[in-house]
Amino acid sequence: MKARHDPICLFEFGASKELVLRFKDDVDLVQSITEVARSKGVKAGTFTAIGALKSAKLGYYDQRSHEYREIKIEAAMELASCTGNISLKGGEPFVHAHAVLSDEKGNTRAGHLLEGIVFAAEVHLTQLEGPGLERRYDKVTELMLWVME
Amino acid sequence: MKARHDPICLFEFGASKELVLRFKDDVDLVQSITEVARSKGVKAGTFTAIGALKSAKLGYYDQRSHEYREIKIEAAMELASCTGNISLKGGEPFVHAHAVLSDEKGNTRAGHLLEGIVFAAEVHLTQLEGPGLERRYDKVTELMLWVME
Amino acid sequence: MKARHDPICLFEFGASKELVLRFKDDVDLVQSITEVARSKGVKAGTFTAIGALKSAKLGYYDQRSHEYREIKIEAAMELASCTGNISLKGGEPFVHAHAVLSDEKGNTRAGHLLEGIVFAAEVHLTQLEGPGLERRYDKVTELMLWVME
Repeated sequence: MKARHDPICLFEFGASKELVLRFKDDVDLVQSITEVARSKGVKAGTFTAIGALKSAKLGYYDQRSHEYREIKIEAAMELASCTGNISLKGGEPFVHAHAVLSDEKGNTRAGHLLEGIVFAAEVHLTQLEGPGLERRYDKVTELMLWVME
Repeated sequence: MKARHDPICLFEFGASKELVLRFKDDVDLVQSITEVARSKGVKAGTFTAIGALKSAKLGYYDQRSHEYREIKIEAAMELASCTGNISLKGGEPFVHAHAVLSDEKGNTRAGHLLEGIVFAAEVHLTQLEGPGLERRYDKVTELMLWVME
Repeated sequence: MKARHDPICLFEFGASKELVLRFKDDVDLVQSITEVARSKGVKAGTFTAIGALKSAKLGYYDQRSHEYREIKIEAAMELASCTGNISLKGGEPFVHAHAVLSDEKGNTRAGHLLEGIVFAAEVHLTQLEGPGLERRYDKVTELMLWVME
């Protein structure tokens, strides 16, 4: 469980279950994955998603001011890439996802996925079994990150 | 097998096999993954790919007219991201993939990957074992999507 | 082990271990994954990462001149997507990763990830068990690629 390299926190997981999900239109992608994690008891996991969104809110974390800037996307976009993970925050499943969106010309916008209203979405979620993956306050970044105990 | 939340179709899979593939130049990435799925009997799966393409056709689905718009990329591009899945359509393996491409300045184009002529490609495909993942016509989106039976 | 289709090299893997990693600020993402692979004995693997970078060097491989062009990103960027694999090169673990980065407006830059100085990074690495995945010189592309023996 102890990483050899100080700057690296390493958590090892064993057997896993694979979930494939389709989300129907008008649900929020982030909230829906959180709900699935809660209902299936997923305490640690990782996922990818593709599909299309009706609108989205992306985030950019300002590494100096330590504040999130919100980027509103009020247009129908392809979900060209979405990668994320599930861990615990305050004992509850918490979803952290990043996404790349693309418009009718193939032009892109990307960032931390705060909200994504689904047109159609296909998600592959790998449920991991192993140590607790709990987010705690990190002084350096002022973000909630994983800490080894 | 039944999702607790109405807007979510959830399919659970067990053991899986991991395939790592290299595609040589001039093959189509989408067709080649389809051929591997057919030859290895993959009825459900998920994959990622990186590499470089000689040319590509991307798609954007117009959420109002319900028609695909084709974006032709007649340039050598890095395959910066590619995420996709394999399921059945009319009983045959069907590949659904999205991709982000990048040019010599790092500028990007992205969307549904209709065709990608390979310069070099490395694919990681996870074969899933479990329930049938069959695409059927969805009235709301006019797309072929997964339905729980 | 032999692929049915000539243009495809197919490697089959069995059981796998799942590693979840957090990298702390100021390490290089590519080097850190290489170090984890070395310390954990990962000879074949695949990973995704999300987070934020302080700076990065992206690569674009010129398919005509067969030379890498380097794209320097001297700005704090979200790591919107990162997909990669681990295999052997000269008997040592070698990381091949592609990434999509995004700025405060959600605009993107992408390519082969040569270097990524971490602000915060969360990595999911799947260790694969099976045949040797060794990179060798490929005449067609002048890249180091996987070959079936």
